[in-house]
Amino acid sequence: MGRTGRRPGGSDSRQAILAAARAMFSAVGYDKASVRAIARAAGVDPALVHHFFGSKEALFVAAMSLAIDQDEVAETLAAGDPDSAGERLASFFVRIWEDPASRPPLLGLLRSAVSNERAADALREFLSTTALLPVAGATAADSRASDEARLRATLVASQFVGFALMRYILRVEPLASAEPETAVAWLAPTIQRYLAGPTPETGGPADG
Amino acid sequence: MGRTGRRPGGSDSRQAILAAARAMFSAVGYDKASVRAIARAAGVDPALVHHFFGSKEALFVAAMSLAIDQDEVAETLAAGDPDSAGERLASFFVRIWEDPASRPPLLGLLRSAVSNERAADALREFLSTTALLPVAGATAADSRASDEARLRATLVASQFVGFALMRYILRVEPLASAEPETAVAWLAPTIQRYLAGPTPETGGPADG
Repeated sequence: MGRTGRRPGGSDSRQAILAAARAMFSAVGYDKASVRAIARAAGVDPALVHHFFGSKEALFVAAMSLAIDQDEVAETLAAGDPDSAGERLASFFVRIWEDPASRPPLLGLLRSAVSNERAADALREFLSTTALLPVAGATAADSRASDEARLRATLVASQFVGFALMRYILRVEPLASAEPETAVAWLAPTIQRYLAGPTPETGGPADG
Repeated sequence: MGRTGRRPGGSDSRQAILAAARAMFSAVGYDKASVRAIARAAGVDPALVHHFFGSKEALFVAAMSLAIDQDEVAETLAAGDPDSAGERLASFFVRIWEDPASRPPLLGLLRSAVSNERAADALREFLSTTALLPVAGATAADSRASDEARLRATLVASQFVGFALMRYILRVEPLASAEPETAVAWLAPTIQRYLAGPTPETGGPADG
């Protein structure tokens, strides 16, 4: 077990592990990625991965949370007229999926979570504790947004996730080839209504 | 290779194969299901499966197309005021996902398509040639709906698929525990706008 060339513990190693984990999870998915292989790619001892992150699941959360910059989501929502927050968020979301650098980890995240229960746990935690907070009008320090705000945030996520699935994974036409601006224009009112539209009245039980 | 107890070729065998395929794909996903095991479960010779369906992929399409009754989608859309078609379709969609009988094949369909390229091809074909046609205002005989109608149909599908993913696969709260009627009430205006709302104006390139 030679250690030649391995990095010492510290911030650089942590970043190297995260980068390797992100690449590995993106390329082969949660099931086939191993902590050992990630450590090897990062040039560190597997024990250091466990030291920093604890478990493969926690490493997945940490690596994949890089795929969506939570602060950028919060800034996008805050930077302008609340009436066009839906358009800004849709535009941000389509842009990160169109970006060849950020699409692979997002694809890896989605694919892994659908096929593996541990990865689904990880994505659920990521969505609940980080990604959805700014959308729900909360911050990490104030994580108890109202139930309705959280429901609105999950509805926003549902439209974005479904759009990504249809366009980038299943590639169903004509959505797969639509111009990004066309996609944003269609999605924006949906996101706006989920963010800030009136609470719909719940009718009687669904008919039939 | 004993053939005792195997059914003769014909309509019953075809139905038995479809039922077995549906159960198998739902339980273990596309990758792990084999034509041989499906034939065994249906009590027929594997050659008969190939005779009826050609390939595993085609069998997947045929078995999974049972998960959504295309005629029922068309009837749901047509049966009432066009202004409430979105609500009827959302109600129909949530109902089939809430039904313990129809949820497993839908889950199997979605999980398989996300993790396997062949299953994704199959789902794409199913969506394009059958499931989306009534939504796009077309029938099987008239499969060339306009591009915009088809785009609208894929947007409808994107919201439904994302909702199913968040609620039934990832189970992100509070969407996972929301009452079905609450979910329908939130989804209905989105679906209505995709079905029949005005075509949005495409602004300049997405900013940033």
